[in-house]
Amino acid sequence: MQNRKKVEVCHTPSLYPQYKKENQIVVVIDVLRATSAMCTAFSYGVKKIIPVATIEEAQGYKDEGYLVAAERKGQIVEGFGLGNSPYGFMNPEFEGKTIVITTTNGTRAFHTAKDAETVVIGSLLNLDALSNWLIQQDKDVLLLASGWKDKFCLEDTICAGAFVDQLIASGKFTCDEDSSIAAKYLYLSAKDNYMAFLKASSHRRRLKKLNLNEDIKYCLTPNQTDVIPIRKANYLILLEDYRSI
Amino acid sequence: MQNRKKVEVCHTPSLYPQYKKENQIVVVIDVLRATSAMCTAFSYGVKKIIPVATIEEAQGYKDEGYLVAAERKGQIVEGFGLGNSPYGFMNPEFEGKTIVITTTNGTRAFHTAKDAETVVIGSLLNLDALSNWLIQQDKDVLLLASGWKDKFCLEDTICAGAFVDQLIASGKFTCDEDSSIAAKYLYLSAKDNYMAFLKASSHRRRLKKLNLNEDIKYCLTPNQTDVIPIRKANYLILLEDYRSI
Repeated sequence: MQNRKKVEVCHTPSLYPQYKKENQIVVVIDVLRATSAMCTAFSYGVKKIIPVATIEEAQGYKDEGYLVAAERKGQIVEGFGLGNSPYGFMNPEFEGKTIVITTTNGTRAFHTAKDAETVVIGSLLNLDALSNWLIQQDKDVLLLASGWKDKFCLEDTICAGAFVDQLIASGKFTCDEDSSIAAKYLYLSAKDNYMAFLKASSHRRRLKKLNLNEDIKYCLTPNQTDVIPIRKANYLILLEDYRSI
Repeated sequence: MQNRKKVEVCHTPSLYPQYKKENQIVVVIDVLRATSAMCTAFSYGVKKIIPVATIEEAQGYKDEGYLVAAERKGQIVEGFGLGNSPYGFMNPEFEGKTIVITTTNGTRAFHTAKDAETVVIGSLLNLDALSNWLIQQDKDVLLLASGWKDKFCLEDTICAGAFVDQLIASGKFTCDEDSSIAAKYLYLSAKDNYMAFLKASSHRRRLKKLNLNEDIKYCLTPNQTDVIPIRKANYLILLEDYRSI
């Protein structure tokens, strides 16, 4: 009982200082759509992803010849060929490539956790694979929801709740924090029909207006890949590559 | 449809800047126990409550002869006769008196909303009375949960969800924000048995350790009073006194 690790949920990046601890694994979550897109890109063979905070940085990489994805307000930024639609990354030509990516919320959360020892990328797409790995690590876990412009966001909370549920079920974790208890309850209410549960959510409405319903359906379908993207310096690589370095 | 007002939930004081708007009524909520205690005090005849942020300010008022309540970490601060237990305020001798109060979280939330035009005090104790009044005001409503040291807290979110539920049911409000949708879901899961739902909550565990189970039961029993405490300058008075000024 005493040896169980803690799993906590931080609902938005600005609350991170209240939740961070030493020796914690931070899971960055941005279901719609940054971390779903990242998991998709790796599952299609991308070798390395460099998340950057600003359009200017993204442009700098583009000028150097990098493949760059840039999204703001749900849309591809003018002048860039890719945004954060997972479908954009299902491209056999990207195999082995490095991709630079900047998005409204997800890359911000990634940079917020810059002082964390270990940062991995979570989404519903890699739920089981990442949960199983987290369960083996014997470390406290913080699920960091990207939110929407630093406001609470439903789909990230539900995804965090799905991870909480699996970690608790392993018997190796406790959740003492109210934020984790709430996330788990919301997940249990949502899990039988994510689309219906999120019907009213602000982000789903935003994306629906942009005709991105197919993206939403894809991002809300758990376990489509077993990739585990992990941070190395300021970029992301696959866990298997990280181990072999 | 266009004329409906918005009801939103802000989960902790530090997120307030993201949620605040002009012309909004802010409802400060600290179920365990500051706003429950304030509602109780007014229902027992207290005339005026002055919330202060620090022990030093509280001591200053005490030195001037004021009746002062001071709580930190769930306990009465040494040297003060009152904390934030609602039972402490059920005293016929307090009728017509002014009370100064400082608590860990609730008074901080009150001061966070200092720029809001209208600030009222909410708890489960005055749920119906305050909901009915809010429904009549034709203004946007922000439910500001006090949280616990700026972390998300379950009982305040559930109470906020109870207000969201009533406001939406009136047909005069919409809730677009994910934080409000989540609060309403959590309230609907909790409402048939708050004590059981909150069994695992961190704050309930904290208070239980301090033998405050009776306080918790009382604070989680809706509609024990119809008082509506409202801010006037830097203190709180009853709505009926506010109107007659």
